[in-house]
Amino acid sequence: MNKKKIINDPVYGFVSIPSAFIFDLIQHPFLQRLRFIKQVSMTHLVYPGALHTRFQHVVGAMHLTCLAIDTLRSKDVYISTEEEEATLAAILLHDVGHGPFSHSLEHTLIEGVSHEMISALLMDKLNEEFKGRLSLAITIFNNEYPRQFFHQLISSQLDTDRMDYLNRDSFFTGVSEGVISFDRIIKMLNVKDENLVVEVKGIYSVEKFLIARRLMYWQVYLHKTVIGAEQMLIKILYRAKELSMQGKTLFASKALRHFLQNKIDIHNFLDIPDHLIWFTRLDDTDIMSAVKDWVYSDDKILQTLCRKLMNRDLLRTELRSVPYSREEISFVKEKVKAHFELNDTEVDYFVYEQTIQNSAYDARYNNIKILNKMGSVQDITEASDLSNLEALAKRVEKYAISYPKEIGFPLYEG
Amino acid sequence: MNKKKIINDPVYGFVSIPSAFIFDLIQHPFLQRLRFIKQVSMTHLVYPGALHTRFQHVVGAMHLTCLAIDTLRSKDVYISTEEEEATLAAILLHDVGHGPFSHSLEHTLIEGVSHEMISALLMDKLNEEFKGRLSLAITIFNNEYPRQFFHQLISSQLDTDRMDYLNRDSFFTGVSEGVISFDRIIKMLNVKDENLVVEVKGIYSVEKFLIARRLMYWQVYLHKTVIGAEQMLIKILYRAKELSMQGKTLFASKALRHFLQNKIDIHNFLDIPDHLIWFTRLDDTDIMSAVKDWVYSDDKILQTLCRKLMNRDLLRTELRSVPYSREEISFVKEKVKAHFELNDTEVDYFVYEQTIQNSAYDARYNNIKILNKMGSVQDITEASDLSNLEALAKRVEKYAISYPKEIGFPLYEG
Amino acid sequence: MNKKKIINDPVYGFVSIPSAFIFDLIQHPFLQRLRFIKQVSMTHLVYPGALHTRFQHVVGAMHLTCLAIDTLRSKDVYISTEEEEATLAAILLHDVGHGPFSHSLEHTLIEGVSHEMISALLMDKLNEEFKGRLSLAITIFNNEYPRQFFHQLISSQLDTDRMDYLNRDSFFTGVSEGVISFDRIIKMLNVKDENLVVEVKGIYSVEKFLIARRLMYWQVYLHKTVIGAEQMLIKILYRAKELSMQGKTLFASKALRHFLQNKIDIHNFLDIPDHLIWFTRLDDTDIMSAVKDWVYSDDKILQTLCRKLMNRDLLRTELRSVPYSREEISFVKEKVKAHFELNDTEVDYFVYEQTIQNSAYDARYNNIKILNKMGSVQDITEASDLSNLEALAKRVEKYAISYPKEIGFPLYEG
Amino acid sequence: MNKKKIINDPVYGFVSIPSAFIFDLIQHPFLQRLRFIKQVSMTHLVYPGALHTRFQHVVGAMHLTCLAIDTLRSKDVYISTEEEEATLAAILLHDVGHGPFSHSLEHTLIEGVSHEMISALLMDKLNEEFKGRLSLAITIFNNEYPRQFFHQLISSQLDTDRMDYLNRDSFFTGVSEGVISFDRIIKMLNVKDENLVVEVKGIYSVEKFLIARRLMYWQVYLHKTVIGAEQMLIKILYRAKELSMQGKTLFASKALRHFLQNKIDIHNFLDIPDHLIWFTRLDDTDIMSAVKDWVYSDDKILQTLCRKLMNRDLLRTELRSVPYSREEISFVKEKVKAHFELNDTEVDYFVYEQTIQNSAYDARYNNIKILNKMGSVQDITEASDLSNLEALAKRVEKYAISYPKEIGFPLYEG
Repeated sequence: MNKKKIINDPVYGFVSIPSAFIFDLIQHPFLQRLRFIKQVSMTHLVYPGALHTRFQHVVGAMHLTCLAIDTLRSKDVYISTEEEEATLAAILLHDVGHGPFSHSLEHTLIEGVSHEMISALLMDKLNEEFKGRLSLAITIFNNEYPRQFFHQLISSQLDTDRMDYLNRDSFFTGVSEGVISFDRIIKMLNVKDENLVVEVKGIYSVEKFLIARRLMYWQVYLHKTVIGAEQMLIKILYRAKELSMQGKTLFASKALRHFLQNKIDIHNFLDIPDHLIWFTRLDDTDIMSAVKDWVYSDDKILQTLCRKLMNRDLLRTELRSVPYSREEISFVKEKVKAHFELNDTEVDYFVYEQTIQNSAYDARYNNIKILNKMGSVQDITEASDLSNLEALAKRVEKYAISYPKEIGFPLYEG
Repeated sequence: MNKKKIINDPVYGFVSIPSAFIFDLIQHPFLQRLRFIKQVSMTHLVYPGALHTRFQHVVGAMHLTCLAIDTLRSKDVYISTEEEEATLAAILLHDVGHGPFSHSLEHTLIEGVSHEMISALLMDKLNEEFKGRLSLAITIFNNEYPRQFFHQLISSQLDTDRMDYLNRDSFFTGVSEGVISFDRIIKMLNVKDENLVVEVKGIYSVEKFLIARRLMYWQVYLHKTVIGAEQMLIKILYRAKELSMQGKTLFASKALRHFLQNKIDIHNFLDIPDHLIWFTRLDDTDIMSAVKDWVYSDDKILQTLCRKLMNRDLLRTELRSVPYSREEISFVKEKVKAHFELNDTEVDYFVYEQTIQNSAYDARYNNIKILNKMGSVQDITEASDLSNLEALAKRVEKYAISYPKEIGFPLYEG
Repeated sequence: MNKKKIINDPVYGFVSIPSAFIFDLIQHPFLQRLRFIKQVSMTHLVYPGALHTRFQHVVGAMHLTCLAIDTLRSKDVYISTEEEEATLAAILLHDVGHGPFSHSLEHTLIEGVSHEMISALLMDKLNEEFKGRLSLAITIFNNEYPRQFFHQLISSQLDTDRMDYLNRDSFFTGVSEGVISFDRIIKMLNVKDENLVVEVKGIYSVEKFLIARRLMYWQVYLHKTVIGAEQMLIKILYRAKELSMQGKTLFASKALRHFLQNKIDIHNFLDIPDHLIWFTRLDDTDIMSAVKDWVYSDDKILQTLCRKLMNRDLLRTELRSVPYSREEISFVKEKVKAHFELNDTEVDYFVYEQTIQNSAYDARYNNIKILNKMGSVQDITEASDLSNLEALAKRVEKYAISYPKEIGFPLYEG
Repeated sequence: MNKKKIINDPVYGFVSIPSAFIFDLIQHPFLQRLRFIKQVSMTHLVYPGALHTRFQHVVGAMHLTCLAIDTLRSKDVYISTEEEEATLAAILLHDVGHGPFSHSLEHTLIEGVSHEMISALLMDKLNEEFKGRLSLAITIFNNEYPRQFFHQLISSQLDTDRMDYLNRDSFFTGVSEGVISFDRIIKMLNVKDENLVVEVKGIYSVEKFLIARRLMYWQVYLHKTVIGAEQMLIKILYRAKELSMQGKTLFASKALRHFLQNKIDIHNFLDIPDHLIWFTRLDDTDIMSAVKDWVYSDDKILQTLCRKLMNRDLLRTELRSVPYSREEISFVKEKVKAHFELNDTEVDYFVYEQTIQNSAYDARYNNIKILNKMGSVQDITEASDLSNLEALAKRVEKYAISYPKEIGFPLYEG
């Protein structure tokens, strides 16, 4: 009773915590840790408002899941109290394995251990602590529950995870292109043969949702300055690990030090329980406090990269639809080598090429299904009146090159 | 000075009236009349909030035009005070020739006289009254001014007219799919060789604008219940005119009576000045008060249609991508004839087929131009990374049939 | 089932109609009539967006009542299905007796018959039609049901009626001062000893609600230009009735004619059933179409007032906290008599004095009760930390004088 | 030209940077540091969205100042380019002296050195760097410029500082009570005898602003859980400094270590330039990374407080309008001493009493002036029709006590 709490959320107003168990789950340090992990890592360097956290996101996604369950029940879909609790727990925990600046970590401090894998490990650990009460949640999360719509609600191409993050990232970045009619979509959800479907009246809102997602990718998630800054952080962590493995002691919190001084990969991560424990103590603060200190490191590379990041003197990143040729890249690298007096290895810390890609809708799996007035079910690409959705299903690739601003615009010069 | 007024607008907050002349123009009865003409005619029967008027729209479009002029000036585009005033006057007047429920009138009371033609006539009349001060506005409106960007600002595929109505119609219907980032688009406007262009950073906002427009078409402007209701009104006016021409006297305001009792078409509209004068006295009130009274008419057809419209017992309208066959239509008509005891002529007042079509972007004329970082200009379909825009340029056709609900769903039965 | 419909509302997004009976009630012509009665009559002449209707308001208030019932149930307040339906029906019907421009009518066409009385008559009529299914709704509406909180929810100083109209009028006028945290207030509602209470955490939101209401009164409902325009309409109707009673035939719809040509007051309204029937056919359209026509009346007074209203050449209204003296009023009247060549009786159609008053909170009856953490209940004025609420409870009076702009600013001259 | 940049801001949409010099100022490390200092320190523990920074705030306040200058110029108030730039620079710099969790630092690490004093020092330093270009800005900031309205615009009871933070804190907390009509207020600003005044039409918006500020104080800034958490941080820093001064080495960044290991007060702060330099390297990250590490400290007090803060196991804080008696406080302390096995000195780290106070409007200085229609100026308390503002001017005091939840609710027991 006392635990029937409310969380203030600027996106939805009020979020009610539906039960004491869910409250206890939210209070657990594994979830509280998400308060200190930003949802969109370095994006705030371009959109200063985007400081929101994974904690806010999982609470918001839980809220949308509650609304969806209410809608389904109002349409006479039977959902037991256990199923409800399990679905809510599953969405709350779906991001629990994220580390700070996840993608940067996965390439440097923890090689090849995905956040999905860590989420699974942490869910098992929590299930032990809560004496099996999370078993159904884990079954649903793993899509092993026969009533598939529960899994689809929290993990599919039209799930409460995406609905929340589009809305939330729009709200905090101020990029209104990502605002979606989540209430309209949720009111149109239904279940047919234990699968999640959208009633045909909601088709335009779903289209809008897919388009909003595509626009958010190009305007926010893959914004050239953002991907450049994230690449800088990767290089910083890579350099710090390199120096640490050579025996150099860098300023670091205990948790970060553990990851700098040990070689951690997919093999030993599962074998050595310590790695997971230290992981649960790591958040954005550990990384940022180290980067701040490293501005004064005596390693020139580390120092330069950290100073540039902290002073927001970010690398210039250019994006285009044609790959950069070997010649173009060499040309840029030569300029940087000359300007910063770097050798062939060192220059790689300052010039990066990346291929980025995105498709708004993947027609191959877990398709969005539309329920027609006559009661039959169609894939959304067939139900839509325009070939937009075919277009959205296309994979778009772009090519990026990043380099320090000091060298001007070498590729435009001649 | 005293005329530097402010108009309260829920969409933009405050709209400042930029000069005394613009204030006088707004005060003119021709513009005040627009206070009584709803922007989206019968749409409020589906979206009850959509009672906003053409007056609000033209004031809003003027406001956006002011913002655009500010942006262009901040980018060192020279715009004289006269050009500014003329552009603002032109956008204020662009809809002055709209009658109540325009499209319905054009097919019934005033055959073949478009609102564009009436706008032109009224602008000339106003120009006389204001002693030539509107000459430049009319030149810009007619796209006869050499600096074409002024015309493009108020009338093109990315003009302040469309920006305002998408925003406004979204606001009042509550269909958030139509919300556009007008401020973002406007801040990205620029002028190149006297043509309006959008800087490349704004490309996603323009895409969003085109998509928003498409979604608003299908969700609002061409909503099946709305087009059914508008067709009912056309039939009502057609019947009323038919009866009036036969000598029957129906309840009507003086202005409406003029249009019921005279045959008015494109030929005599220009010859007989009275027609235009009576037109400027006609607004939604004349039509709605007549329809209300005609509920008690002794003509069965007129009475039935009016009663259904007033009680919101609207015709059922179905929409599909395949045309209805002659057999299907006959089948429906037979059912209606039997149920309502109608003959072959009369049934046409109750069963309608329509073809509706829309393309979000017309690649053939007045294209949206993107200004690249290097200073060159491209058509948006070439500059965009996805073939979405090609898709948006496709003309989509749908087929509608409307009939009274009393006969059930005849086309699904057999 | 088929009747589980949704109404689009720009204020709340989506409003679900909770049951087939409620749907039937909404479809009834008595409620559909409210689609053509503006919520805030002449206010759109100052705030052009304020064209929203009593229909939208009652649907919105029903929606808030649904939310409140959900909250109370989640706090283990038992509410039966019958009680829920009755409360929703009662709020839907609470404004059913409003005529067009209610206050104007009450002073002219229907002397001394309040809209509350007409609401009661119409509810009884509906209850007959629906075979007694509205009996509990009427009991609750009349505050005769022992569980008083149902009545308080829809009719008290913190009811869903006020919450909706503040929000809605804010939305459509664009005056953000009236926006209230309805969701926050509703989530804080509870029931103690069958009375509605607000949990103490919600006290600032309630304060904000009372203050918002006060600000809306002075900025919108009692805006000087609005009260001037409404007074003009009263004078128009008064004059039209005067002329009609003298035997003159004015243009009017059948329903309006009934009220112009018959003396209708509180005595005969109940005796002659015809009056009520005609009343249910009267809406804003009848009034506005008549006013439009009367612009061409041969009665100078009627014609002048109507022309001024239609062209938005409104009377100038001044507001101050000291009453206007007899001398001041005479002085103004003499100016108007001279300018318009009027006699002593006629001038009263052009110069009006009014006293307007408002208190945001009436401490005398139906007080807002706060539930403390310890479970005891206090009046809000005692629970609040500031004497603001005492101030809000003060009755504020202002004095208005209205006169044609043609005479300048006579009271400032000498 | 190239520096005419835009900053994305979710509160206002887009913020244009008005000139190259302002851009350079924003890029300076002193201002970039504000990106890592949260505007409302610990508030995010109650309102999870409230992670916005002082950087966002100063940019937003600059934007409002731009709008205000535009409005004043449109009313023919002469403002030179130099005055504009100086005013914008002054508002940008007004918070530059804030440290992380300012109020906590002022009581612990830096005794008695206010952020205002540090701001002044940093402005002088910047003025040197920018070769005197900030001189006028500093003159305006210090209210030494004869045209006082510039100072009033950025620092008075109705300044762009307050307007921005109310709006922004509302936006990010989701507490809609703080939303103000900043555009309406700004449009009503004017200058009379070189003083800032508000035109009388804006009086309700100003009232709303004062009330919003009061509500934000009680709902956000002085929220009991927030002030409890901030007090915990003060005690943590106090303990850490105590231990450090005793020679114990705690984990800390270089900058934080400087402040832990040196006694810094108002006297030596000015004498030793190093203190200011280290201060400019200190932000939220330094504090939070230390607190995270100290969870594992071997000092029981430090460890317990840090663990509680990081796990959001916050002290319980109670607020009331009567001071807590010496007996009550002793009673609570005894309970805590017993439960945690603490001595008389140690218990003060876990039980705190505070007096908090606020008045929404201070009638004694820098009053808000209203410009009447007749051109005369009045204090707002005289111009307002209600005694609300007198009430708002009252100083309200509340009394708080904080203690660990482990001891229950001792003051309610008996």
